[in-house]
This record gives sequence, C-alpha cells and structure tokens, in this order.
Amino acid sequence: MNIEIKDILAILPGENETAPQRVERTSVCIEGKRIKAVGEVPAGFRPEKTIDGKDRLLIPGLVNCHTHSYMSFMRNVADDLSFMDWLFGRIDPIEQKMTDEDAYWGACLAIVEMMKSGTTCFNDMQMNICQTSRAVKESGMRAVISRGLVGSGNDEAGSSRLKQAYEEKAAFADCDRLSFRLGPHAPYTCDEAFLRIVAEEAKKNNMGIHMHLSESRTEIENCRKDYGASPIELAERTGLFDVPFIAAHCVQVDEKDMEILARHGVSVVTNPASNMKLGNGFAPVPEMMAKGINLCLGTDGAGSNNALNMIREMSLLTLIHKGTHLSPQCVSAEEAFRMATIQGAKALCMENEIGSVEAGKKADLAILSLRRPSMWPVNNPVAALSYSANGSETETVIIDGEITMENGKILTMDEERIYFETERIMERIGK
Amino acid sequence: MNIEIKDILAILPGENETAPQRVERTSVCIEGKRIKAVGEVPAGFRPEKTIDGKDRLLIPGLVNCHTHSYMSFMRNVADDLSFMDWLFGRIDPIEQKMTDEDAYWGACLAIVEMMKSGTTCFNDMQMNICQTSRAVKESGMRAVISRGLVGSGNDEAGSSRLKQAYEEKAAFADCDRLSFRLGPHAPYTCDEAFLRIVAEEAKKNNMGIHMHLSESRTEIENCRKDYGASPIELAERTGLFDVPFIAAHCVQVDEKDMEILARHGVSVVTNPASNMKLGNGFAPVPEMMAKGINLCLGTDGAGSNNALNMIREMSLLTLIHKGTHLSPQCVSAEEAFRMATIQGAKALCMENEIGSVEAGKKADLAILSLRRPSMWPVNNPVAALSYSANGSETETVIIDGEITMENGKILTMDEERIYFETERIMERIGK
Repeated sequence: MNIEIKDILAILPGENETAPQRVERTSVCIEGKRIKAVGEVPAGFRPEKTIDGKDRLLIPGLVNCHTHSYMSFMRNVADDLSFMDWLFGRIDPIEQKMTDEDAYWGACLAIVEMMKSGTTCFNDMQMNICQTSRAVKESGMRAVISRGLVGSGNDEAGSSRLKQAYEEKAAFADCDRLSFRLGPHAPYTCDEAFLRIVAEEAKKNNMGIHMHLSESRTEIENCRKDYGASPIELAERTGLFDVPFIAAHCVQVDEKDMEILARHGVSVVTNPASNMKLGNGFAPVPEMMAKGINLCLGTDGAGSNNALNMIREMSLLTLIHKGTHLSPQCVSAEEAFRMATIQGAKALCMENEIGSVEAGKKADLAILSLRRPSMWPVNNPVAALSYSANGSETETVIIDGEITMENGKILTMDEERIYFETERIMERIGK
Repeated sequence: MNIEIKDILAILPGENETAPQRVERTSVCIEGKRIKAVGEVPAGFRPEKTIDGKDRLLIPGLVNCHTHSYMSFMRNVADDLSFMDWLFGRIDPIEQKMTDEDAYWGACLAIVEMMKSGTTCFNDMQMNICQTSRAVKESGMRAVISRGLVGSGNDEAGSSRLKQAYEEKAAFADCDRLSFRLGPHAPYTCDEAFLRIVAEEAKKNNMGIHMHLSESRTEIENCRKDYGASPIELAERTGLFDVPFIAAHCVQVDEKDMEILARHGVSVVTNPASNMKLGNGFAPVPEMMAKGINLCLGTDGAGSNNALNMIREMSLLTLIHKGTHLSPQCVSAEEAFRMATIQGAKALCMENEIGSVEAGKKADLAILSLRRPSMWPVNNPVAALSYSANGSETETVIIDGEITMENGKILTMDEERIYFETERIMERIGK
C-alpha cells in the first residue's frame, strides 16, 4: 500500500554515524515495503492512505537486540529473589510444564507489547522450536531468531538442537521478515568442544551467532576455573567471533575482554533492567563505546525485566551510567537513540535495510503522540524519548510497509484472544 | 458523591508497617471525602456512581514527595550537560523571564501529568508565590507547598520570602487539600544565621520544613569548608530537625549523617532519576532503610527528570540498588510501594489520612488497567507496578472523594488549554 505520513516531526539520521540526529518537520512516502521519499512528495505519488503528522513524532522502529519472547507470561512470577531461587525455584518449573502452544502465545503477547511501545524488530533466543517464528510471521513483526543451543562435545542434545535450528530456518524461508542465527546459550551450558562445533557450523551455514556472554561474576569465576579464560577469551579461541556475533550482557568485562570484542567487531547488547534486576550490575557501556564497540540495546525476557519496552530501556540506559560515572554527560540521549535503532540494525547485519528513516530503506516506523503531558511542550524530541516518554505514546506502527498497529489498535493479531490464552496458561502451569 | 468501586483487585496494607501488602479482590465504598468501607458494602449504602473493577487494579494514590511543579515546561531543554551549564546556561535564563502566570500553567501541566500516572498528592518547592497553590486548588489535587527560601542572616530576601510563605498559607486556608511548609532551599543558598531564623519561624508557626540536603559532592565539600560540618550536621545544629522535616536527595551521606537523620525522625525523599541525570549518583537507600529512616520517593522537577511519573520512579528505585549492591533482593517491589505511598504520607504527616486503601482514610485512589500487554497475565500486581508498569495504565483518579480523572480524561482541568498555554510560554521565553 502507498502511504503518506504528512507534515510530521521526524528524527532523521545525522550527517555521519556519530553526529546528533536531525529533527525536522517533513513528509514520508511509503511504497510497498520501502520508504520511497523523505521530504518532497515524488511527482505522481498517489497515497492510498494518509497519516496526519500533527502533534506526532516519527521515529525508526526500535530494535530490541536481546529477548526471549516466549517468557512474557512469566512476568512478575519471581522477583526480588536470588538468581538460583529465581531460575530453579520459579522459572524452570514453569518452563518444564510449558508446551509449544504456550510458547507461541507467549511470543504473541510479547509481540503485542513490543509493537505497543514502538519496537519493530527483535532478536530472540527461543527454546520451543518454530513457535516464535510462527508468531512473527503471522503478526507482521520483523525478527531474528536463534535456537537456544546447549551441548557437550557432539552429544545428542547439541546435535539435535542444531538440526532443529536448520529445519526452522528452512521452514520459514518464505518470510523475508525472519532471519536466523545460531544461539549457543552461554559458556556454562555449552562446553568448549561444543562451542567449536557451533563456530564451524555457523561458518559452514553462513549464519551469525547470538549468545549470552559475561553476564554475572559467577559465570566469569567458573569460566576461568574451567577453561583458564574469561567467557570472551573462550568465545574468541573457539572461533565463535569469526562470524557476525551478538553478545548479550557483557556486564563483567575487563580491558582485555573489551579489546577482543572491538578487534572482532562483536556487537554488544546491553540489557540494563535485567542486569540490575538479577543483581549482576552495570555493563561498562561508556568504556565499550570508547573502544569503538558497536553497542545496542535489549530488554532481555519478561522473566527478568519484567517488561519489553525499549523506551523504558533507553531511559535506564541514559540514566544509570550518569549515576555510576558521576557525570551528566555520560551516554547522551542521542547515543541511546542510536543504540536503540541503527546500531541495533547493524548488530543484526541489517543497517542498510532498517534502523533509520531514509529513502530506500524498509518502512519500519513508529509514530508517537506528542500530545501527552510528559511529552509537552516539544522542546527536544530525542531527549524526550529517553527522559520523558514511557512507550505508551506509540500510536501507529508500520513494519515492512504494512500498518500493524493503528491508533493503538493491533491490526494483525487478535489481542483479546492473546490475553485469554496467556491467562489460561498461567492458571494451568503457573502455580 | 457516594461511589462504589466494585469487585476490584486492590493492594491493601499488610499486617504491619513492614509486612508485604495484601492483594485482594474486594469492593470499596466512598462516602463524601472518605473511604467508608473496604470489603462488605455497608447496609444502606447507596452509590450514586459505580466503577467496574474488572481487569483493573486499585491502589492508594501515589505520593510524590519532592518536585518543583512549575518547571514542567522546561522538560528537555537542557540535557546531558554539566550541572553548571544546565542551571546557569539554560534553566536560570528561562526562570528569569518566567511570569507568575507562566508558573501557574507549568503547575497545571505538572498536575495533569501526575494525575495521569497515578499521583494524588505532591510535595512542592515553588518560587512564584501562590501559583502552584492556585493550580492545586482548582484541579482537585492534594499538595504540600513550600515557598523556596534563600537568605543570609535577616536580609531582605529571606524576610520577604518568609512573609510570602505565611501570606500564601493564609490565602489558601479554605482549601483543606493544601498544606504548607517552609522551604529553605539548600545549605549553599541559605547561610547558617538564616537557617537558624527559619528553624525558629517553623517552630513558632507550627510548620514543617522541606529542604534540599546533601545532593552533590560539591555541596558537601563547600559546606565542610564554610561551616566545618556536613549539610546534615549543619541542619541539625541550626535546629531545623526540631520540626517535621523532609530532606530531599541525601545522596552523599555518611554513617554519621544517617544516624543524625534517624535520631531526629527526618524523612528522606530519594529522587533516583534526577540524582542520576545530574550526575550526583545513587543515594544509599538500603543503608538508610537499615537505620530505620522513613524513606519516600520523589521525581524532582521536570527540569532534571524529565518526567513526573512516580511509577517510572518506582521502577528506577527497585532496579538501581540491586545494581549497585549486586543483589537481586535489594529494595523489593513491596518496599518501593510503601515508599511511594504510606511512607510518603508519613513524611508529610498525613499517614492517618492518606497513603493506603483503608476505611476512614481520605479517598485518594488510582485505578489502573491490567488489560495491557505489559501487565498481563496478572501474576503479582505489586511487582508489576515497579517492574512492568509505565504509569500510562492509570485510568481513573479519585482525590478527596472527587473523581478528577475518568477513563484517562481529566475532569477538573482544561487539558487542551494547558497544552496551548505551555507551548506559548516556551515560544516566548524558551529560546
């Protein structure tokens, strides 16, 4: 469908990769799946739909670079607990009882929540084969899916999960909003021999990798004990960094780790809420930025967040490092915006397709209301996103040129059914 | 008006001051300004209005214990700047041009924002005499207002502002939703002699005090240099703690300071967003809690937050201390809830009137929608408030028995007029 978004305040890319964004009143024309023009309406462009930009803000859809969408119905079941009580006392028993169908509805709920807070693409690590992909395909969302892999050497667990990863990729080859990575879970669930296999498989199959790395102090200690290496050193020496690699967390990293990450062009996803909530601390984001590492932003799963709201995450990202560094200039709103958009796209190897409002790119866009007390007056929209917004300003979402949400209403999914099903799931398996 | 809130999930007080809250499905009857009953509907109670509790959550209205409401139109004008550039480069020049009428509209915008995120009472420090009080009186809000005082000894500036504080109190004696404190600004804007005068005045006039204390490292250093005392020691020796005292910030406090605060029953307002945003750091909230200090929560002004959303502040409060203490058990959702409600009420000496859903108390209540993807399924509403909500779930607000907002619509103020006026103000004085 041809869409014109008319006379809207828009956050457009700056002059170069690190320049501040331009905020301009403009019009955006969408033809098919792509942005045809930003600014002048091209001669002969006939919109089938026009969206009025008055008192609204146009941003590139946000890119949530680390989550486990199936977990959404587990929000607020296990809080203020030690990591072990959280995982083995509450989350694990629920996951044990979870069916594939449950995982599907969990992913659906997560997608609704993400769309409603301006996210148009997410990078997922899942456990129930094909279910998140199914929800993504149906909902009009864009996602990168990693099958969570655990294994020792070439044991059955690892091999069969690798096989499933390829089967899932093949099964959804017809949906160009979906792409796939391999998802070795973490250094404490995959041994070195298995990690070497995963690295070889990724190279052979031309797939990127998405992995949890250096999340907690315990992980570092155990990894050093078991392998005489930090998790990042282990990942390097097993060849995992030879393919496009997204490292989730990187909270507990030292100077040497950061140099390795920078050297291999690894993208790091910081997950501020989850890292604090589980008591893991604060990732050294300003230090990693200084090393030139591509930083991006994620919510992690709703089991440890407990929301999938990238605007809330931008707010945390901009605030906490100012606190830890006693510097109000640390991690600016502009930098947070880049991490939540173009740098996320870059992490997913999609920076030429999504992550900014530019002619030729896929039309993955969010339109926010500025007519809210927290967003008013409109003094600086980029700052407002991190410091004033809460995500609920999102009115309309366009993904791959399709309007998936309009004036707060999800058009591509049955929201009421999703509430019904996810409530039933927790009645069945949540006690 | 008699109101019945029917069959609603409600957060009710626990068995004692520190016990977890009870979450129960119940009904609440309001007669005039007060809650008549929680649970059984009293015989003969005839509601003029019934609110359906289905898929909704009833909480006591949140108590924002430190803000400067007039600043709301200055949101996002000065971010990611050093404190000096923030204050003298951007905020101060705007304040210099601000008229009384501007301050009134600023307070109106702030009140709309607070109501829309579940706040029913706020503790304000203002600079433009009578304007915030006027906005509070008209809007149906509840507030405690402090005239910001600066002075040296018995100079003209201090004396005239003290006089204005009394005049304002007298002028609004007919509005029982308003009460008044004295607001000596900070140790760096009031000298010791003036602070002694304020302490005497407060005692003589039976008024509490609301003051910024120990916000930044610079403040501590200068105070020690000028007075050989920490700001808290200075406040103690000038007699300020001899009346009910609310200390905003207390970020940079040591063991001795905390003991003084505890000994005098001083209430401390922590303002997580503002303290991080201005690069002042993290208040030692868990340590102050351990000393038995009454902790409460505030947003500070929109010039340094840049939102007035107590739900967002609860989220920050519960997360950041888990991060700094590497402990997921630090500052629980239950504790944050108490700080944002009953402990805030206690700080304002109103714990017998507001701060919890209990028969006999003033009907200051907020009703939130649970039918939101981020709030669903309803596993633990107390946890959901801190970890999943963003404030926009607030549908209906009742203050002093009056419905001030219903289904998202403010009934007591002209929201469109407020947007119009505050936009005009920034066009005039914001450049």
